[in-house]
Amino acid sequence: MSDGPVYERVALIGLGLIASSMFWAMKRGGVAGHVSGYARSEATRDTARRIGLCHTVCDSIAEAVADADLVVLAVPVGAMGAVAAEIAPHLKPGATVTDVGSVKRTVITEVGPHLPETVHFIAGHPLAGTEHSGPESGFSTLFDNRFTLLVPVEGTDPEAVARLRTFWERLGARVEEMDAEHHDLVLAVTSHTPHLIAYTMVGVADDLRRVTDSEVIKYSAAGFRDFTRIAASDPTMWRDVFLNNKEATLEILGRFTEELFALQRAIRTGDGDMLFDYFTRTRAIRRGILEAGQDIDAPDFGRAKVER
Amino acid sequence: MSDGPVYERVALIGLGLIASSMFWAMKRGGVAGHVSGYARSEATRDTARRIGLCHTVCDSIAEAVADADLVVLAVPVGAMGAVAAEIAPHLKPGATVTDVGSVKRTVITEVGPHLPETVHFIAGHPLAGTEHSGPESGFSTLFDNRFTLLVPVEGTDPEAVARLRTFWERLGARVEEMDAEHHDLVLAVTSHTPHLIAYTMVGVADDLRRVTDSEVIKYSAAGFRDFTRIAASDPTMWRDVFLNNKEATLEILGRFTEELFALQRAIRTGDGDMLFDYFTRTRAIRRGILEAGQDIDAPDFGRAKVER
Ligand SMILES: NC(=O)c1ccc[n+]([C@@H]2O[C@H](COP(=O)([O-])OP(=O)(O)OC[C@H]3O[C@@H](n4cnc5c(N)ncnc54)[C@H](OP(=O)(O)O)[C@@H]3O)[C@@H](O)[C@H]2O)c1
Ligand SMILES: NC(=O)c1ccc[n+]([C@@H]2O[C@H](COP(=O)([O-])OP(=O)(O)OC[C@H]3O[C@@H](n4cnc5c(N)ncnc54)[C@H](OP(=O)(O)O)[C@@H]3O)[C@@H](O)[C@H]2O)c1
Repeated sequence: MSDGPVYERVALIGLGLIASSMFWAMKRGGVAGHVSGYARSEATRDTARRIGLCHTVCDSIAEAVADADLVVLAVPVGAMGAVAAEIAPHLKPGATVTDVGSVKRTVITEVGPHLPETVHFIAGHPLAGTEHSGPESGFSTLFDNRFTLLVPVEGTDPEAVARLRTFWERLGARVEEMDAEHHDLVLAVTSHTPHLIAYTMVGVADDLRRVTDSEVIKYSAAGFRDFTRIAASDPTMWRDVFLNNKEATLEILGRFTEELFALQRAIRTGDGDMLFDYFTRTRAIRRGILEAGQDIDAPDFGRAKVER
Repeated sequence: MSDGPVYERVALIGLGLIASSMFWAMKRGGVAGHVSGYARSEATRDTARRIGLCHTVCDSIAEAVADADLVVLAVPVGAMGAVAAEIAPHLKPGATVTDVGSVKRTVITEVGPHLPETVHFIAGHPLAGTEHSGPESGFSTLFDNRFTLLVPVEGTDPEAVARLRTFWERLGARVEEMDAEHHDLVLAVTSHTPHLIAYTMVGVADDLRRVTDSEVIKYSAAGFRDFTRIAASDPTMWRDVFLNNKEATLEILGRFTEELFALQRAIRTGDGDMLFDYFTRTRAIRRGILEAGQDIDAPDFGRAKVER
């Protein structure tokens, strides 16, 4: 890591978990000369000012992006198009616009057409998060050693991509490029479908009359406790993810149901060998994740420590 | 908490995660005068001797239980019946026999008939665990502030139950009583079905040709990473759990599939309101778990620190 700012002026649009973590990480690494921020609600802007989030918190989105060399869209996936339309007239020629949305195909389709040809649009997605949200949930180490995927469309200026890559690396991330369709499929498997399943399981527990919520809460063992954490994530963000990554999520859900039915049949028929073999196979993936350093084999669960 | 040993002589049958954690917790609290241990494999017995697990590691199960005031069956659920038959002729009159199996109805049905009338059989289940197994995986704080459920059959000597309760409390646990059927339903919701689902999701990821295992491993985000940890648990233990808690697991799976289909339909039809409402409802359960102190809202995930 090294040197001065990667971008002189950065604008963060939306000031939630991801944007605030980006600000603290930029501050930690001296990655930007000046950061301006904007959120649609006064409450969020006030909070940001109170906790020192961004050098300048602007009351208008136009003002926030006006001089920016890098504009980061950090709002729910379903809001990206409208925000892009709003900022478009105010962007500085030569600026880079990126986003951090969890789905890439629809964001590219909805943001791209609004932006002038004078700016570089490079979609992105940091694979890092927690179940918390809002301007006070961010911390500087969120992206450390995690991947950020960049999804440039064909014909994007390679220098602009290289600079954005350096930016994310200076925030602590490992950066790779991928096309939008593959991104959405990979994420459907590694993040979106698991979230839907966790939400469903917690919903089932909540519904079951013969087991009270208070029993579920008292006796929630490992496994379910992890699910409740996942299922505590922001409803707006996740609604938008599923509405926008419909195809890949439905495909993975179809496969999931098929395999679940096979296991269910093994339970019903008492096929212990099938269950044993299945449960043995899945251990290998865990081992791979530990070896790749994407989690640690210790009780702190490999999640980043909160530090600013 | 207080005072001297709750049982003068304790025997641990099976020396894996649960038994070894019980030993370290007994040692920490001075809960037993002497602890003997037995495991079927020489390898496990050697390891136990090497790390100082148990005061005496016996090469025969008869020897291990001969003088015990409390015998703990800490083997997979499917092995409980056979182990009970083996120890039965060697039990001291007046002794208490308990188990730690994750399913209770079948264990009671399979263990009870083998034991002489001169001993108290009180089934139990500590709601605490990790994805690790074997004699070296235990630690003294595993049961701290977690529930242990006791499942005495009708007519059990209340004094024997009270003593076993004190024993678990001295190991750090909160103790409650419950009947076997309700136990198995509660656990199907809070632990068994979540585990099956996690195994399935990891299996789906492993199967998908267009996304390589190495991509799954590199890009595994929160959510999926948690699933891989759950799905790394011991295959024998979990095979036995599903074979022995068939009815309740199948019931909960049926409900799960029903709700998952409803969410899947909402995704397909683009019903954002349904998704939003569902995702909002499940947050309340998480809040309850945090308030009940069964997890903490911090990145170490509320899992016990490894300390002996
Ligand atoms: N959380 C994660 O784990 C994670 C991980 C990777 C990527 N992402 C992606 O990152 C983006 C931001 O997520 P986050 O977790 O940072 O969210 P967050 O903490 O909930 O913050 C969202 C921000 O977007 C603003 N916003 C919400 N709806 C809006 C709308 N309709 N128009 C304009 N602004 C709106 C909010 O403004 P107010 O505060 O004024 O309401 C808030 O500042 C999302 O696209 C998400 O998919 C999230
Ligand atoms: N792990 C959890 O999260 C958890 C939580 C609560 C309750 N439980 C219950 O606690 C019990 C023990 O689980 P654990 O996690 O401690 O298991 P573990 O670490 O895998 O240890 C199992 C022990 O049982 C012995 N064993 C295995 N199969 C046997 C057989 N057929 N006959 C005789 N002995 C056999 C093993 O002997 P060798 O070492 O010689 O092979 C080993 O000592 C299970 O009934 C499980 O359902 C587990």
